[in-house]
Amino acid sequence: MIKNIFLKKKITSSWFSFLQEAICEEFQKIEVDFAKKTKKKPKYFIKKNWKKSKNQGGGTYARIKNGIIFDSVGINFSEVSGKFHKKFKSQILGANKNPNYWASGISVVAHMKNPKIPAMHFNTRFIVTSKKWFGGGMDATPSFKDARENRLFHKNIKLMCNRHNKKYYPKYKKWCDNYFYLPHRNETRGIGGIFFDYKMDNWEKDFNFVKDVGLCFLDSAKTIIRRKMFSKWTKRQKNIQLVKRGRYIEFNLLYDRGTKFGLSTGGNVEAILMSLPPEAKWE
Amino acid sequence: MIKNIFLKKKITSSWFSFLQEAICEEFQKIEVDFAKKTKKKPKYFIKKNWKKSKNQGGGTYARIKNGIIFDSVGINFSEVSGKFHKKFKSQILGANKNPNYWASGISVVAHMKNPKIPAMHFNTRFIVTSKKWFGGGMDATPSFKDARENRLFHKNIKLMCNRHNKKYYPKYKKWCDNYFYLPHRNETRGIGGIFFDYKMDNWEKDFNFVKDVGLCFLDSAKTIIRRKMFSKWTKRQKNIQLVKRGRYIEFNLLYDRGTKFGLSTGGNVEAILMSLPPEAKWE
Repeated sequence: MIKNIFLKKKITSSWFSFLQEAICEEFQKIEVDFAKKTKKKPKYFIKKNWKKSKNQGGGTYARIKNGIIFDSVGINFSEVSGKFHKKFKSQILGANKNPNYWASGISVVAHMKNPKIPAMHFNTRFIVTSKKWFGGGMDATPSFKDARENRLFHKNIKLMCNRHNKKYYPKYKKWCDNYFYLPHRNETRGIGGIFFDYKMDNWEKDFNFVKDVGLCFLDSAKTIIRRKMFSKWTKRQKNIQLVKRGRYIEFNLLYDRGTKFGLSTGGNVEAILMSLPPEAKWE
Repeated sequence: MIKNIFLKKKITSSWFSFLQEAICEEFQKIEVDFAKKTKKKPKYFIKKNWKKSKNQGGGTYARIKNGIIFDSVGINFSEVSGKFHKKFKSQILGANKNPNYWASGISVVAHMKNPKIPAMHFNTRFIVTSKKWFGGGMDATPSFKDARENRLFHKNIKLMCNRHNKKYYPKYKKWCDNYFYLPHRNETRGIGGIFFDYKMDNWEKDFNFVKDVGLCFLDSAKTIIRRKMFSKWTKRQKNIQLVKRGRYIEFNLLYDRGTKFGLSTGGNVEAILMSLPPEAKWE
């Protein structure tokens, strides 16, 4: 059992960083495979490092823009530390008395060129204040109903969750539905998935679960994209996707805690707003 | 001097409603004039009424979408009443003890087809809780620098303000710059204008000023649009406008108080989000 918090930080951030590499590699393969079959030109991930001031860490984000599979995909890894601002610290678990924090995580947002393939989002993080906990989740936002895809996505997640604890899937699924919700439109962002936070039951078990969430996302995303990557679409269908993306933007800018947290703690703006689709419409 | 609050409500809401008509008429003329000269087909304002539940008023919004001058323009009038939600009332002047409110206002947002013409925004409102006050302002968001246009816009506002009080323009200009600001990007939304709130010095004088702000906006908007409506633009310039609009969306969804107020008090979603441009890009 690992008791040393320094080691825990090191191990989790190494995992998040490794997972970033793994997802980049698989997504790059998809882009390249599609290029070969269609004789188009693939786009390659471009990586950028950023640093917070005063030795407070930073991150790496990898991105494809205007790809042939990915309209935009961003895969962020970060490991940062600092002090929460007065205004903020009372809102953060364990930060009220001591505002120091350390946080590391990975987040992925993929907006697809093909409107028949859903936008996909995944994130896991480990946060240390006077408390320490894991959070994360994954969810999908299709522009069109696809019952088989919906089942496939949820089944994968459920099987993975059940390997850890039978209570996880129903609990985290509900949490996801409640979180990715646009009250002003009375609609969910997409078809859900799982969402969890303040996870601090048992560090080893929680970390194993968090790793599995990442691998499950990678597997699900690959399957979902490859399943429909060669299907054709119409301009009308693309337009429906662009309007759906407008809702995605509304959610992320109006309600998403991660976006607000990042922007108000001096995170890297490009890395944070990578979650926004490259183009959207409002009708 | 009008002492009766009922009359004050009646007079202000009548003015806002009249001004809506006047702006619709002038903007429609521009769309039609442009159509005649270019032999294109103009779009016409479509008006919709909406009602809040329980006899709490409602509004009328007039809109052109996909016009030949206006990519999107919304002109909203509303007169609503109700009780502020517990969570909200402590944030509203004069509503902490008595959560009842009445509010009427007009707001205009115009996103232009021609990227050389700035997006323009205007709003005036009269709000009654246990206090009563006016608020409002106008500002412009060009995608390209145009020093003459900038001077013209600010000069018109300054002259109008100075007819009321020499202190207004510098004070309200600064308020505008501070308000329409994106901290995460360290940039202003546009070239500013004026912004004021909690105005309750003298009802008659304040109302006269508010009326003048409306007429000044109408005059400035007409001049600015007609000045450049026939100028040509490139695809590259349109693209720059689409990216600028992304910033506009970021501001409105992340920071704008009116948007948050409207969405969380059960306002009409279409009328509120009419401020968003019809299409935007992120790079």
